[in-house]
Amino acid sequence: MQKKQEQRRPKRPQQQNFEYVRRLNGKKVKIFLRNGEVLDAEITGISNYEIVVKVGERNLLIYKHAVDYIEFSE
Amino acid sequence: MQKKQEQRRPKRPQQQNFEYVRRLNGKKVKIFLRNGEVLDAEITGISNYEIVVKVGERNLLIYKHAVDYIEFSE
Amino acid sequence: MQKKQEQRRPKRPQQQNFEYVRRLNGKKVKIFLRNGEVLDAEITGISNYEIVVKVGERNLLIYKHAVDYIEFSE
Amino acid sequence: MQKKQEQRRPKRPQQQNFEYVRRLNGKKVKIFLRNGEVLDAEITGISNYEIVVKVGERNLLIYKHAVDYIEFSE
Amino acid sequence: MQKKQEQRRPKRPQQQNFEYVRRLNGKKVKIFLRNGEVLDAEITGISNYEIVVKVGERNLLIYKHAVDYIEFSE
Amino acid sequence: MQKKQEQRRPKRPQQQNFEYVRRLNGKKVKIFLRNGEVLDAEITGISNYEIVVKVGERNLLIYKHAVDYIEFSE
Repeated sequence: MQKKQEQRRPKRPQQQNFEYVRRLNGKKVKIFLRNGEVLDAEITGISNYEIVVKVGERNLLIYKHAVDYIEFSE
Repeated sequence: MQKKQEQRRPKRPQQQNFEYVRRLNGKKVKIFLRNGEVLDAEITGISNYEIVVKVGERNLLIYKHAVDYIEFSE
Repeated sequence: MQKKQEQRRPKRPQQQNFEYVRRLNGKKVKIFLRNGEVLDAEITGISNYEIVVKVGERNLLIYKHAVDYIEFSE
Repeated sequence: MQKKQEQRRPKRPQQQNFEYVRRLNGKKVKIFLRNGEVLDAEITGISNYEIVVKVGERNLLIYKHAVDYIEFSE
Repeated sequence: MQKKQEQRRPKRPQQQNFEYVRRLNGKKVKIFLRNGEVLDAEITGISNYEIVVKVGERNLLIYKHAVDYIEFSE
Repeated sequence: MQKKQEQRRPKRPQQQNFEYVRRLNGKKVKIFLRNGEVLDAEITGISNYEIVVKVGERNLLIYKHAVDYIEFSE
């Protein structure tokens, strides 16, 4: 996979700290953790390393490093 | 998941090192570790990479990388 | 493995944040996750830490730290 | 967990690289590793990523990323 | 393990981003992954976080964090 | 574990990138990997993320993130 020169118009460089997960703040998602747990959660807060969620009545502060992937609806 | 332009009033940028876990300092929480252990702990100190807790009579210095998530009460 | 002096013409230094995975945006790939799952996915977005994909009808935000490797076709 | 404004007198900002583990240098501790081992160790040196210890007659250089938590006495 | 003063002529400081793996670009190696797989691979590209390889007819983009070690011949 | 003021003469600040492992370059050590393997190795090179070793006739480039700890003799 050679490094092609940028023939097309150079894309606007992505802001350094852009994260898709920020788009999911306030949304209901399924979070798949490294320990195999799957959480049906509502995201209530996001920081550089943390995702804060409500899972039913529970408040959880999840570390991103413990997340494998998040399923969301457009 | 397209990158929407920020139509709403741009949110005050999150300070670079903001962490929700700092809010839990001094509180009683349940810490779920990557090794499967669950600790009923009182947080007595937090640094960039560490969470210091009392678990009964025990003093533990926990590395954040070993934590999956923390359950807390509002 | 001694550190050979750069006899050949010094290679153009790799831009600091160059990533091959950016070449796979919009492509169909197989993503092999640390938990053993293999996802037949179409990459729809990439950020510093995330790969957003469609897997059938599902939208997934995958953390790069959870990926072992990605199989792609040239 | 809303981000409360700092009503109380702003805490002296934590020096950027402050680590509690530095307090344990020279002390006897129990180190719980990610592989399940528990080491009764005396800490003889600490760097950004390493903890050097004596375990009986053995000298070990432990990587912090391999440590889950450390039990210590005040 | 005391920190000895540098009696010998101070070594030329290692460039900040020097990596031995860059020496293996274009070579045939055995890559031992964290999931236990061993890949007989030819390295075709290397970036800060990725190693691109050919394994037989397959093109793989491997994340360095998923690699335990690489066996190479001098 | 309160943060004691530095009563004693402030220690010379540790150079930012100091690593004990650099002391082991050229030495015979036992390397305990996250996958449970134990390698009797001679360290022949060290970089920020890599430890290059000879294990018998084999040349291995080991990623530090895959190492739990290293046993060494003073």
